Amino acid sequence: MITVNGNTLKEEFDLDAAKNSIGKEISVSATVHKVNDMGAFSFIHLRTARYVIQTVYDPQSCQGSAEGIKEGCFVSVTGIVREEERSKNGIELALTSIKLLHKPGYDYPLHVSKWKLGCSLDINLDNRGVALRNPAQRAVFKFQEGVVSAFRQFMLDNRFTEIHSPKIVAQGAEGGANIFRLEYFEKDAFLNQSPQFYKQAMVAVFDRVFEIAPVYRAEKHSTSRHLNEYIGLDFEMGFIDSMYDVMDMETAMLRYMMQYLKDNYAQEIKMLNADIPEIGEIPCIKFEDAVSLIKGSKAKNKFDLEPEDEVFLCDWAKKEYGTEFIFVTNFPSSKPPFYAMDDKEDPRTACKFDLLFRGLEITTGGQRIHDYEEQLEKMKRQGLDPDDFKCYLDSHKYGLPPHGGLGIGLERLVMKLLGLQNVREASLFPRDITRLLP
Amino acid sequence: MITVNGNTLKEEFDLDAAKNSIGKEISVSATVHKVNDMGAFSFIHLRTARYVIQTVYDPQSCQGSAEGIKEGCFVSVTGIVREEERSKNGIELALTSIKLLHKPGYDYPLHVSKWKLGCSLDINLDNRGVALRNPAQRAVFKFQEGVVSAFRQFMLDNRFTEIHSPKIVAQGAEGGANIFRLEYFEKDAFLNQSPQFYKQAMVAVFDRVFEIAPVYRAEKHSTSRHLNEYIGLDFEMGFIDSMYDVMDMETAMLRYMMQYLKDNYAQEIKMLNADIPEIGEIPCIKFEDAVSLIKGSKAKNKFDLEPEDEVFLCDWAKKEYGTEFIFVTNFPSSKPPFYAMDDKEDPRTACKFDLLFRGLEITTGGQRIHDYEEQLEKMKRQGLDPDDFKCYLDSHKYGLPPHGGLGIGLERLVMKLLGLQNVREASLFPRDITRLLP
Repeated sequence: MITVNGNTLKEEFDLDAAKNSIGKEISVSATVHKVNDMGAFSFIHLRTARYVIQTVYDPQSCQGSAEGIKEGCFVSVTGIVREEERSKNGIELALTSIKLLHKPGYDYPLHVSKWKLGCSLDINLDNRGVALRNPAQRAVFKFQEGVVSAFRQFMLDNRFTEIHSPKIVAQGAEGGANIFRLEYFEKDAFLNQSPQFYKQAMVAVFDRVFEIAPVYRAEKHSTSRHLNEYIGLDFEMGFIDSMYDVMDMETAMLRYMMQYLKDNYAQEIKMLNADIPEIGEIPCIKFEDAVSLIKGSKAKNKFDLEPEDEVFLCDWAKKEYGTEFIFVTNFPSSKPPFYAMDDKEDPRTACKFDLLFRGLEITTGGQRIHDYEEQLEKMKRQGLDPDDFKCYLDSHKYGLPPHGGLGIGLERLVMKLLGLQNVREASLFPRDITRLLP
Repeated sequence: MITVNGNTLKEEFDLDAAKNSIGKEISVSATVHKVNDMGAFSFIHLRTARYVIQTVYDPQSCQGSAEGIKEGCFVSVTGIVREEERSKNGIELALTSIKLLHKPGYDYPLHVSKWKLGCSLDINLDNRGVALRNPAQRAVFKFQEGVVSAFRQFMLDNRFTEIHSPKIVAQGAEGGANIFRLEYFEKDAFLNQSPQFYKQAMVAVFDRVFEIAPVYRAEKHSTSRHLNEYIGLDFEMGFIDSMYDVMDMETAMLRYMMQYLKDNYAQEIKMLNADIPEIGEIPCIKFEDAVSLIKGSKAKNKFDLEPEDEVFLCDWAKKEYGTEFIFVTNFPSSKPPFYAMDDKEDPRTACKFDLLFRGLEITTGGQRIHDYEEQLEKMKRQGLDPDDFKCYLDSHKYGLPPHGGLGIGLERLVMKLLGLQNVREASLFPRDITRLLP
């Protein structure tokens, strides 16, 4: 009988360990990134999970032949680690053995080993599985891993409980037309537009919860900042005094995140030439004041900010306060969402905020209504029938603490941190009105 | 102008900090779990995010009145921490002030403060937002958080990259009838049955990837072990020699997980009286041998294991090897999935495995086909048209390293670790053929 003991695991290449092994032989399994034939010897650049490693192949001193080994092949090598200033990582491997593991039948259709892919975004996305093999392309998603890890770690450190709420729902959290409909065993169902209802219910269970999960919006327009499926970084916290407790939590989280990224993803930051912001105090402006600040005809919409308004306000915050972030608060109360608590001091407005960063809204949040009667009333005022929300309202009926929370669009945050032009570049396999594949 | 600085955050109750504050005054905001009126004074039990804390309210020495404060109210208190052996946590608070934050209009419809809810699962699920306020009910999900955290941490420590793949897809990974159909801007789309295709594509990018995300199966039957939406713990790793490398990785991960749970979720383990298994070597049995081991008429299905077979094999492993885990390998090659590599030494069988634990399959995994031609051939042998899988096959065409991986059903694993009778008990808001709400 064979048994599995889990004691000796296959290891992935570790740059720090390699740097501590100068003069020693190490083994690496990797993808051939590029081969430079120098005549008597070759440089074979190997692509590991996170690095491109320079190796020197000299047929005289290497067991196994590199004959026919080219870009895209998969190999297993051993080599002596040498210091080498001219190599990108400061080391190179003098190969002592090379073994071909697999040679694909087709050459890459894109310039994977070039610094820039040099193709249109559409061609990139059509060939996504190959495009992502390019070191700069994949670095976006290694960096994204860091953004997610930092968010999660900060939440756990602050005693938020991680939850998983259903995405197939009987009704959307945001209502309206931008919702995907589903056949669910002959019943009508939808893909959730936000974990809002579940986060709120769970505040009564765990005081503080967070979720990292897909969110669905059937937006019919195709812009550089919308995805139809994106990852929401959501949290909700109980026992707050006001929405400013939520904004403070977000500010501290973002500060932690920027430091975490600098500490753990310096290579990707450097490779992508990303400008990681310093986060000091973040100014807050009321929607009404923001509108009167925005000159002339730009503030056409009296209920929400237009994309150009977001750019304007960020420019203004940069000039006035030297920061790339600005909170806009107190949106009109008559505007959705119906669960936003009205400001007791100015009931025409709701305790709702957006966070803008580098010209784009990356967060929507606020204090929610926790009182049952208050929630019924606001629903009716916005023309909604409370009977349609019976399950949701059970939380209010049996009690919710004063609470609030927010949702951050992961891809938008990554896009802005890395200075990408299109949010699709920050999604592994983006979904938009025309794109369902790959 | 108001600014937000994120320097002073609202804190959630910390038991260890409280225990280090004997004789000192601390503040707590929490839900009233239960009030025991003793005449001259009352015990007010407060439910924080993770604990139930005993407080003593004496109107003589407490600012603010507890008049009318009862189960389900939300309060903010200060109190002197005292050692108290008879309290569950070894401490109690002698209240110096109490303030009512919110009093819901309705009493709980369930016995939240009782040890057992004492209602049927249906009533529990119909009133989920209230049922989960019961300490034993919510402990399941605090424990589940630990299972997820352990999986993730082990993966990151072993240099797997966390990914987020789309759930709206043009075709399901598993095919067949158990797939949810979606209206996607006048196109046909589906909810993914597994991140399989994307994990494989990403092996060529990051060598090793993992994902924690919802998975959809339109199973038309209602059993105690099926959910229509569940959380998949998935990983895929490149540069393996055989499926045994994947099984070794899973074994080591599970061992890490059990230790992590004991270290960080001891309170929930104790509360739920959970039996956390020791994981030594795990025996592996080939499907064919398993079938001949299963006596009489039980092994009716010649292509897969029936639920009673899984129970039988686990009992057998327990008796023969003293372990609650058993791997079953080498399922018939003719059976899906089409991406399972055939065993070179026994091509009638595929390099596919299931992991059974306490009578239930909790994992399916295996080595996948990486060669383009081999994949085309197996698809055709299983009656599939490779033209239907063009995007998927691009990964093979342009090269994948030898690789394999697995998927674990989170709720099933939690169910078995905690000895729950129904997988719905391990899902916050379960979805089944009849249940779309709450």
